[in-house]
Parts: sequence; structure tokens; C-alpha cells
Amino acid sequence: MELIHGGDWAGFEMEYGTRPLDFSASISPLGLPEGARRAARDALADAERYPDPLCRALRQALAAYHDVPADSIVCGSGAADLIWRLCRALRPKKAALFVPGFAEYERALAFEDCEIARLPLPGDFRLTADAAALVPPDTELLFLCNPNNPTGLLAEQSALQALLELCRTRGMTLAVDECFLDFCADPAEHSLVGALAGTPGLVILKAFTKTCAMAGLRLGYALCGRAALAERLQSCGQPWPVSAPAQAAGVAALRDEEYVKRLRALITAERRRLIPALEALGLRVIPGEANFLLFYAGDPTLADALRARGILIRDCRSFDGLTAGWYRIAVRTGEENDRLLTALGEALHG
Amino acid sequence: MELIHGGDWAGFEMEYGTRPLDFSASISPLGLPEGARRAARDALADAERYPDPLCRALRQALAAYHDVPADSIVCGSGAADLIWRLCRALRPKKAALFVPGFAEYERALAFEDCEIARLPLPGDFRLTADAAALVPPDTELLFLCNPNNPTGLLAEQSALQALLELCRTRGMTLAVDECFLDFCADPAEHSLVGALAGTPGLVILKAFTKTCAMAGLRLGYALCGRAALAERLQSCGQPWPVSAPAQAAGVAALRDEEYVKRLRALITAERRRLIPALEALGLRVIPGEANFLLFYAGDPTLADALRARGILIRDCRSFDGLTAGWYRIAVRTGEENDRLLTALGEALHG
Repeated sequence: MELIHGGDWAGFEMEYGTRPLDFSASISPLGLPEGARRAARDALADAERYPDPLCRALRQALAAYHDVPADSIVCGSGAADLIWRLCRALRPKKAALFVPGFAEYERALAFEDCEIARLPLPGDFRLTADAAALVPPDTELLFLCNPNNPTGLLAEQSALQALLELCRTRGMTLAVDECFLDFCADPAEHSLVGALAGTPGLVILKAFTKTCAMAGLRLGYALCGRAALAERLQSCGQPWPVSAPAQAAGVAALRDEEYVKRLRALITAERRRLIPALEALGLRVIPGEANFLLFYAGDPTLADALRARGILIRDCRSFDGLTAGWYRIAVRTGEENDRLLTALGEALHG
Repeated sequence: MELIHGGDWAGFEMEYGTRPLDFSASISPLGLPEGARRAARDALADAERYPDPLCRALRQALAAYHDVPADSIVCGSGAADLIWRLCRALRPKKAALFVPGFAEYERALAFEDCEIARLPLPGDFRLTADAAALVPPDTELLFLCNPNNPTGLLAEQSALQALLELCRTRGMTLAVDECFLDFCADPAEHSLVGALAGTPGLVILKAFTKTCAMAGLRLGYALCGRAALAERLQSCGQPWPVSAPAQAAGVAALRDEEYVKRLRALITAERRRLIPALEALGLRVIPGEANFLLFYAGDPTLADALRARGILIRDCRSFDGLTAGWYRIAVRTGEENDRLLTALGEALHG
């Protein structure tokens, strides 16, 4: 079975018998918020009960957190679960996405026998208002990742407004994946959550995966511009997608606002430090604003060379629109980033 | 959003503010095996890592446990996840199932715009070899639950053999849900795991949900007659369906063979005690062999009356082939069953 995403620590451990330093998955390096860890542990005491299929307590907490109606929220087993549910719920005949982009949109769409328009980002990977003109007029579902994975770049405001306009006037569903937005310096300025009330066709995908280091627990959610779509997403898959520990951890994590602030400060500082340090190694770095950085090294064997040194990075050749020689690294703690820089220096110039 | 399954303790708690005694979901009353609880708790330390998408350690353990090849196993977020994946993977034009039966087969099939033949079980709900004749010749996928939910009855051996024969000669996929089989007195005698090697179209669905009290953790798996189907099931949904705590708990639970033996002895003894006790209350009890019992009470308000007494039972009117007045109860510990019997006596005759 083919693995198309980063984070295959299990494969590494089976091969080497040791634990890698994983820069291939872009997860908070601060670990689970302590309250979330405690809540998940406590939830194990009730593991014999089915989880609440409707995630009522979690959805209420999310509704308060985002100031949106609870009935417009649906929770899933990570954002990936919701990407699949969305494609299944809408079964679009024609969809569009920007390349390079997160591979899971295309996987889920392809399964619906959907015609997919791959809209190429320009050479600098920046999404500008021109992008709206690329969207075929009969597109039923458009995926947008903001900031984009794997580039880390934020869409320009004018681009967001132009795409929202398409969504409002054409009856197109606009799915905006904001899973990495909380790592940016000013998330509120770039989030489309405020547009949900006036845009029935808008869906915002969010996850606890990256911002609360909950990848292993599987918890994501969708905020929908209309309650009917949330209900459809809930009903088009198995009834209990979110485990009880994940629901409990999610509720607890929302209470810990300090965690995200601390995380954002760390990531912002380290990202600013990493960009020139990578450039000093001769790499072309895309100036992303998320908790990862995309760079071009040329050398197509760099990931293997780092793997042999116990470090996983994301080889991006499988991304449509990129080639061998492109890599993505997570932004982690200062000490971990130093280890990465040292290993990169050795692999490239050693 | 409509809830079609039992186990809505969350709805009860929101209404009453107290915890119900839940006989509506059929879960092991012994709680999580201690090793599984510890393993799940320990896995929280690594919650920041994605779970192994391929569940490699768990699949190896399952392969050894069932003596089947690891590449014929696929794990999911409960058996329900695999029911949905199977329908999505095969996209049958025509499928069949027996009624009354577990509602999730029909929900998942209906989503694929599938023509569904509902094969009625006879008045005593027993599945005999005659059943094979009911299966339309062009059926692509047949679901069978053994023992059946909600009746608890085991299919006759001749019926299993006749359906296996259809599977082998017609190219039909036969999905046998054995989620409740471990509660029966002699599971090995009734399991079709031994037939997998000679039947490429056979799929056996299993879960830790009921036998290891892991409903809240979400962990099920499918054993496939051919590796290609396992791979297809893995690839037709989100890549990380099983959380890290669930994977770890599953590996640990497989080591605790005493737990299942103890559970089976308890359930067998309590089931034998409950049947005449329910009959003494004037109920028509179907002599099931699982960890639940189906009975006919006539009174369509019995579930409400028990709910007001803090006890949830499963109103079975929503099952195709049953009517108002049918109920399903879990078989739990002696003390809990006594509380149920007392409440039933009060509700029916008090």
C-alpha cells in the first residue's frame, strides 16, 4: 500500500529500530496541551460507551469559540475525514483545486469519478485575484488551502474575495482548508469564518491535528455556511467518526488559549530564523507563513540522505506542480531546528 | 440529526443530568481490558504523531491471532467504518441483506445508489439453507450478520455453506459480520475465518467495540479473502482512520485471552438466566446466543417507561421486519440485569 503523505515514523522505526526526528509532518512541537491529555486519559474510563455520534459537547464548545451556530458544525476523524465526506456528500461532476496543493483533495475527488481542473499557481506560488478567472464556470466544488500546503503562502485578500464572490453567484461550494492558519502571525485577518453567515456555499475545514498536536487522536471539523450541509456531512459516513478521547481532548484544548499563543510565538520566531539559515545553505526557500517551509534543493536524494541521519523531511516530488528536488520541512523547536540545519549542511556540503 | 442506533447516553445525560444504565448498546460490561487501557493511555504520550496509516503492528498481531496473512487485513474506525468502505470500494449495483438486520448495511448501501434486496427471515428469524435461494442471481454484495443483530441467532451451518457456495460460483462478495460471534458459546464452530483462504470474495468484519468494550475508541477490522480487496478498502477513504490509542489498545487486547474467556462465561450464564426471567414477565423472547436478547412486549411505550427509570433499552421498531413492541436488551452483569428485570416488572405490571 502506497503512502503519499509525510509522517511515516512507523516505517522508519521498522527499518532502523530507533525513533526519527520527524520534520515530514507539520505538527505542533509542543505536544498535547496538558488539559487535553488529561481529558483524553479520563475519557478512557468510559471507553466502553459509544462516543456521542453528534459530538454535542464539542460542537457547543466550538460554536462558542468561533461564534457560529452549533448546527453548522460537523466533527470528524481529522480534517481528512471531512474532505472525504464533503466529496461524497456533494458528488461533484466538476471540481477544481490549485496545484501544488494537499494531495488528499484530489484523492477524495478522484474517488467520485469527478472531472478535476488543476489550476496552476504562478511561479512564485502566490494566489492572487487573477486566480478566480482560472476557475471553470461550471465548477461545483473548489478546494483552497490557506495558507497553502506545501508552500505555506497565504492567499491575497483580493483572491479570497474573488473566490467568495464565485461561491455566492455561481452556487459553487468553496471549501477553504484553514488547518494551518493558526500558525500565521494574524489568523483573524485571513480567516473566512466571518463570511460563513453570508455565504451558504462556504465550508471551512479545521483540525486540532496540527495546532494542538493531536494527529494521533484524529480530530477535525467543518464549519458550514448552511446547517443542511453540516447535516449531510454527518449522515454520509459512519455514525461515530470521532472517538471519545478525541472529543474530550478537543473540548479541553479549546479552553487553553495560552497554548496556541505560545505555539504561534515559537513558530513565528523559528520560521524567521530558519528562512535565512536555509538560504545560507544555498536553498531556494518559499517565504511561507505557516509551521512549515518549502524549499528547492535540486538534489533529488536529500530526503534519503537525511533519513540515514535519523531525520525525516517531506520529499515533494509527488505534489502535482513540483518536481524532484523540492522538500518541505516542519518548523519545530529551536533545538530540533538546529539539528535539522546541521544535518542539512552535512548532507548538502559535507 | 437523526440517531438510528442505540447507546444515546449523551442525549439522556443532557435531558436528565444523570448517567443511565445502558442496555441499548450491546457492549462488554467488563470494561476495557486493563492492558488495553494502559496501552491507550501510554499512546497519548505520542499523540502528536500521526497514527501509522497502515496499522502495521496491529495487523501483524491480528494476522497471528487469526492465522491469516497480514496483507489481507484492513483496520478501521470501528466495523461501521469498514461497512462504509466496503460499499464504497465495491459500489455494487445490486446488493442484498437479511431483515431484520443491522441498519448500517442499508445506510451505507443506500448512499451508493444501490438496488437493495431485503431478504425476509422467516417468522422464527432462523437463517437456514433455504435463504440462499432468496438471493437474487445478480447480487454483487451480500451482508450477513452472524449471530444476527438484533435477533442474536446464529445462522445454520448449511446456510453458511450455501452462501459461501454462491460467493465462490457467482463472483458475489459475501460480507459476514462476526462482531458478536465471540459472545457465543463456541465461536470457532461458527466462524468463517477458516474459509477465507479458499474464498476470494469473502470478507469478515470484526470489531473490538463489543468484545473488548472499546466502543469509545473506535476500532474494527476486515479480514479479506484476497489482499487486493484489503488494499482497496484501505485506499478508499481517509488515510489515518484508526487513532494511535485505538491501535495500541487493540494490540494489547489481543494478548489478554483470559478477558474474552471470562466475558464469554459471564454472558453465557447471564443469558441463560435472563431468557426464562424475561419469559416469566410475559415477554416473547427470541433465544439468541449473543450478548443481547430480542423480545416482543407488545407495549409500544416500554422504552420510554424504562428511560424514565434511568434505563436505556433499544426500541426495535426502526428495524425493517420488526414493529413497535419489539425491544433489544444487552446482557450485562448479574447485578445490572437484576436492576433491568425489576424495572421491566414495574413498567409492565406495576
